[in-house]
Amino acid sequence: MFNGHCLQINSKKSIPEQQSIRYKTVFIKQQVDHFSYGNNDVFDQRVLINSDYFEPYGPVFFYTGNEGDITWFCNNTGFLWDIAEEFNAALIFAEHRYYGLSLPYGNQSYKDPQHLGHLTSEQALADYSVLIDYLRNEYGKYFAKSPFIAFGGSYGGMLASWMRMKYPASVIGALAASAPIFQFEGLTDCGVFYKTVTKAYERFSMKCVSNIRKSWQVINKIGSTTEGRKYITKKFSLCKPLTTVNDVAVVKGWLFNTWTNLAMMNYPYKSNFMEPLPAWPVKRACSYLNKSLDHEVLIDGIAKAVKLYYNYRWFQSCTEMVMPMCSNGIDDMFERRDWNLKEFCDGCTNKFKVKTRPFFVVSQYGGRNISAASNIIFSNGDLDPWSGGGVLNSPNPSIHVILIKDGAHHLDLRFSNKDDPDSVKQARKREIEIIQQWLKDYWQNLKEKI
Amino acid sequence: MFNGHCLQINSKKSIPEQQSIRYKTVFIKQQVDHFSYGNNDVFDQRVLINSDYFEPYGPVFFYTGNEGDITWFCNNTGFLWDIAEEFNAALIFAEHRYYGLSLPYGNQSYKDPQHLGHLTSEQALADYSVLIDYLRNEYGKYFAKSPFIAFGGSYGGMLASWMRMKYPASVIGALAASAPIFQFEGLTDCGVFYKTVTKAYERFSMKCVSNIRKSWQVINKIGSTTEGRKYITKKFSLCKPLTTVNDVAVVKGWLFNTWTNLAMMNYPYKSNFMEPLPAWPVKRACSYLNKSLDHEVLIDGIAKAVKLYYNYRWFQSCTEMVMPMCSNGIDDMFERRDWNLKEFCDGCTNKFKVKTRPFFVVSQYGGRNISAASNIIFSNGDLDPWSGGGVLNSPNPSIHVILIKDGAHHLDLRFSNKDDPDSVKQARKREIEIIQQWLKDYWQNLKEKI
Repeated sequence: MFNGHCLQINSKKSIPEQQSIRYKTVFIKQQVDHFSYGNNDVFDQRVLINSDYFEPYGPVFFYTGNEGDITWFCNNTGFLWDIAEEFNAALIFAEHRYYGLSLPYGNQSYKDPQHLGHLTSEQALADYSVLIDYLRNEYGKYFAKSPFIAFGGSYGGMLASWMRMKYPASVIGALAASAPIFQFEGLTDCGVFYKTVTKAYERFSMKCVSNIRKSWQVINKIGSTTEGRKYITKKFSLCKPLTTVNDVAVVKGWLFNTWTNLAMMNYPYKSNFMEPLPAWPVKRACSYLNKSLDHEVLIDGIAKAVKLYYNYRWFQSCTEMVMPMCSNGIDDMFERRDWNLKEFCDGCTNKFKVKTRPFFVVSQYGGRNISAASNIIFSNGDLDPWSGGGVLNSPNPSIHVILIKDGAHHLDLRFSNKDDPDSVKQARKREIEIIQQWLKDYWQNLKEKI
Repeated sequence: MFNGHCLQINSKKSIPEQQSIRYKTVFIKQQVDHFSYGNNDVFDQRVLINSDYFEPYGPVFFYTGNEGDITWFCNNTGFLWDIAEEFNAALIFAEHRYYGLSLPYGNQSYKDPQHLGHLTSEQALADYSVLIDYLRNEYGKYFAKSPFIAFGGSYGGMLASWMRMKYPASVIGALAASAPIFQFEGLTDCGVFYKTVTKAYERFSMKCVSNIRKSWQVINKIGSTTEGRKYITKKFSLCKPLTTVNDVAVVKGWLFNTWTNLAMMNYPYKSNFMEPLPAWPVKRACSYLNKSLDHEVLIDGIAKAVKLYYNYRWFQSCTEMVMPMCSNGIDDMFERRDWNLKEFCDGCTNKFKVKTRPFFVVSQYGGRNISAASNIIFSNGDLDPWSGGGVLNSPNPSIHVILIKDGAHHLDLRFSNKDDPDSVKQARKREIEIIQQWLKDYWQNLKEKI
């Protein structure tokens, strides 16, 4: 999940190749605007398909692509590759509009709100539904009766669950991993997010947490002088020297994100999702901060603990995906930051020239009332910052809630690994059982109708 | 339901006033385009509210306005006014965008596809969901916890059922009267519609049906000469003389519509929904055609049987609401007319300069697969032409199907009348029971959560 405050993408990096991953790439024509008829533009949506393990009447596992190049998600959703053979399933990875190669207006796509304005979850869901109908027709011989199941992690997990809620005729069920569909205005305490980040660090070292909590005022103090800013510039190996107090605030913002991202990507083994990271990166970071530090020495430790990430404000967080977050420095290890909706929206207008609609997503997807939905698995790692805005209680027996102890951000969707904790093994086992039950029910219902 | 082939609106006529109908009118700001951020225009949606019978914790009956001035539907949905007191319900009638006074761009709204393009069912449903959230906030003291139930007839009934499918957090259930949600490409035999029109006439007189069936070739023959066209012009009191064979085809098109509309509005008492009509208008029309007629005498009878309607092609039928219809002259009383999707779409491009998307509605609303839906009543008159594209079989126990014997188009939604047949009385009784059960379940669930 790339939130409004942070995002790291290093699109220049090559995608690491997994041995087991093979797909063919197709492009499907889509309307740029499904919901208005004044715009007849179309674009090519990229879709990755693997049918190596598919057998007639097998299911189709459909990954609802999120905010990035679909090949990343394809490479980092090993769970689907691990279970394809067992299910005789085809795998489809659909790229989200405006990311990767699925750019409605080519290199003009991000030019202005007129070109970019069609980047919304509703349009993306409509793409997926149209795509599924297209696949059923085009590959009718194979897929006509095949049940489709949606999979997704993070924002992709939100899309997977919304796909089942809004388009239940397209998918018979959804696995929504680390999908914070309740992380919206009025639905979840804005402080939960950073409290959970802090918990992920507490799990390894209370000392580490108190050092980070202390670091903000130390940075403020040292950053208040020219000499101090030079020191910080050097220690953090910044490309551009910090010249003003405002520059120091930018560094702090970047630190907020970095601590958060390390918690999200706190997998039990080396990973390479957004950045190459060691196993348990929070533990590694805390190894530099596991005794009481202060002053320049603390800055030193912080600088060693973090790596440099790229940062940007995610466009969709400025339109509908407005996720309130705040910290108070007491219940969490961060500097106090209040949530100010107006300021946030003003920042968006400033940056993207768009008008934020922070309440629409609740009207559109029902807020906390998801009791009419069915056949969705919501899985969450208990140490994932996004779990606080996730679905943690089931409103009815066909909504399954799975909590993964010590789990980071959609750990269950990754390839199985010898260092996986038992909790994630159990979670995957349960997910497989539930999906098998959906398939059984599906064929049973179909038989009854014939 | 105003279909692609026909529509009669006489907007110059004043709305007949019902004694029991009182409401206040409010206007609510809505986004013109909910799903794109390049357009920040807003408009005022008209909403009619009556809370005379409302008591705290009472339900809110929410009419999902269809294609026309909302005051028509308000005046012709007597069922809600009849039951408001019994339920201590508030009544809300929401006007559909681009109709009545809810014109996004004032008198420029219908100017071109750029202005008109936002006239879609998806945008309208989003309006209703935003409106419901607004009402809950604005009238929180009254409505915060009140369960909303959607009601609608015809296209409004489609919207009511889709509202429950797509926005189940907004409404706990829906009564969708005469809602042909299956009248789309690939879902229903295109011939069913005119077969059902024919059935409505057979119910009164087989002779009438054979006269009408014969009339097409008689009109063709007489219309093929100048003299004959003069005769037709005179008998039908046309304002403009028929000069070509093509003009004759226009008259036949108008006859198709008129026979259809008489069947739709075949209520057991005088009505004034679109045009003032006598009780059982089909019977009345057939009274001029109840013995074997031919040649000029047949034309005479036909002319007496029909009244003049206004006609236009409904814009939405040219975008997403494409409803295939055909006749063969054998199973129905009409002249043969094949369904030709390409021709239909070409006609739309010609008329409105829009590109039709005839398959999108199936992707969007799931086609015939509505098994994940819950709490919807689908009622249909068995003699209503639209019943063939309606939901006539329930996919699960919480979808209720009610067939009304001898019923015309959403008869159950009208005011109760001393001439109501037993079938519609029974239907309304059953609808009330089901709604009471929904309310009971709602409060029970809420209690369990506290």
